[in-house]
Amino acid sequence: MIDVCLLGTGGMMPLPYRWLTSLMVRYNGHSILIDCGEGTQIALKEKGWSPNPIDMICFTHYHADHISGLPGMLLTMGNAERKDPLTLVGPRGLTRVVGALRTIAPELPFEIRCRELSEAEESFSFEELDLQAFRVNHNVVCYGYSISLDRIGKFQVEKAKELGIEMKYWNRLQKGERIETEKGILTPEMVLGPARKGLKLTYCTDTRPTESIVSNAAGSDLFICEGMYGEADKQEKAREHKHMTFQEAAVLARKAQVGQLWLTHYSPSLTRPEPFMDEVRKIFPRACAGKDGKSMELRFDDEE
Amino acid sequence: MIDVCLLGTGGMMPLPYRWLTSLMVRYNGHSILIDCGEGTQIALKEKGWSPNPIDMICFTHYHADHISGLPGMLLTMGNAERKDPLTLVGPRGLTRVVGALRTIAPELPFEIRCRELSEAEESFSFEELDLQAFRVNHNVVCYGYSISLDRIGKFQVEKAKELGIEMKYWNRLQKGERIETEKGILTPEMVLGPARKGLKLTYCTDTRPTESIVSNAAGSDLFICEGMYGEADKQEKAREHKHMTFQEAAVLARKAQVGQLWLTHYSPSLTRPEPFMDEVRKIFPRACAGKDGKSMELRFDDEE
Repeated sequence: MIDVCLLGTGGMMPLPYRWLTSLMVRYNGHSILIDCGEGTQIALKEKGWSPNPIDMICFTHYHADHISGLPGMLLTMGNAERKDPLTLVGPRGLTRVVGALRTIAPELPFEIRCRELSEAEESFSFEELDLQAFRVNHNVVCYGYSISLDRIGKFQVEKAKELGIEMKYWNRLQKGERIETEKGILTPEMVLGPARKGLKLTYCTDTRPTESIVSNAAGSDLFICEGMYGEADKQEKAREHKHMTFQEAAVLARKAQVGQLWLTHYSPSLTRPEPFMDEVRKIFPRACAGKDGKSMELRFDDEE
Repeated sequence: MIDVCLLGTGGMMPLPYRWLTSLMVRYNGHSILIDCGEGTQIALKEKGWSPNPIDMICFTHYHADHISGLPGMLLTMGNAERKDPLTLVGPRGLTRVVGALRTIAPELPFEIRCRELSEAEESFSFEELDLQAFRVNHNVVCYGYSISLDRIGKFQVEKAKELGIEMKYWNRLQKGERIETEKGILTPEMVLGPARKGLKLTYCTDTRPTESIVSNAAGSDLFICEGMYGEADKQEKAREHKHMTFQEAAVLARKAQVGQLWLTHYSPSLTRPEPFMDEVRKIFPRACAGKDGKSMELRFDDEE
């Protein structure tokens, strides 16, 4: 199970009752945060989730509304007596930007490790999760992120019995281990059925629509995408500022055949996103306007 | 009239429903902000006051909870198309710290002027206001600020007539101007009564009690002072972290013979300050526990 919370939905500047766009992803006792603008630590507390197990923070880019909350978040994690290292991921310049911001957070009781992205697409892992960073199209270098959890095939008891595999090996085979025994080599493929559908979510903000978004979001259970403007006539403005309209986000969701679309990163001028959603759902029916604190549990198909 | 709003009352970290300590002072269409932690721009919007006329931001010191909101505040002022220069005031290192934070707010449509404080006490002015910065006692260099508005004596019509001063000079004399006429020199002293009581407020946070606070806060109409801990038994902790208890702040208020005391900069562990106030008022009766958004108009005695 992956637990997801959209901590905020604002773009450009934090507003009363609308935190800046940020996503928290929890899995197996660990958390990943994507983006950390001014106030993200308060949004997290409001949601009731703890900053203690955040082990990785990924940044889409370094505009202030996506990173200005970092010094405060680091200090709060330090005050909670964190000792484990924290990994930061982001476009080139990460070490420089984090170093500058740490002018006001110089002393921390934990190590910070920076991973700078330089390729158009980069893969890395976090616990059992696979992360994929992919470059998008904003007025500065900016990345989207996909997070996936693969699921191997079902263990076939009958097959194992048929092949005479001793029960003591079953658990290890089920976990994907290759085992050398006195009687020969046992591989998971011998006893596992076809790989089952895993979980996937994709987050991208501050970008024009791109093919890289479609290919990386493809098949996501949840696709969280910026929608800076609800009004269709803001198309030109979206193009100029390298953002998207709700409608453009919906077209991406349809092309990528995702499970659900949540919109976020609203312009401060957009007071209420809901009135635009009927039009959006004509393009992609399973779309909803993200709200601060909106959360969801992504579960395997037959998981309780 | 001086308009004062305590935008937040928290210390260390912003909390849901408690912004970080910051004070906004409005006078004659201009504003001074003292301290700007994470979320201060949201607190300001919640109060309904505009960031547009902020012409000066004073910093007590550079711990993150007093300055981390600066990049976002600057960008928001820029988005509001500010063109006038902004003056920043703070202890030595201001230019370096602001420069580092501007890594994420590099482009602004207005000029930033930094005034670094280096003396134990420094005076400067802003419009008709006199500001006094005074060094206090924290674990880094930290300043308190007093803001005063003097008031000259009342114009004495009878005296002016007696001296045969032409009416065309009255207004200029009333404003304190010295005038050379064909018949001789006219001075304000000739027609003004004794100076009347002006307005004064003092703000200090992140410090142990000091004599400099007493002398600089002396006679303030409003004294806004940190009270990190309400419990009298946190005295030792206050000393160790270079903060104050409510009781210590009240003693300062009594010594400085101020009009009112507002407490602020509460520890995150202090959920409700009110239960401690009865004890505090035994030391200084006109004390109250500051609340986010608490505001007041300071007026001259006979001002409508």
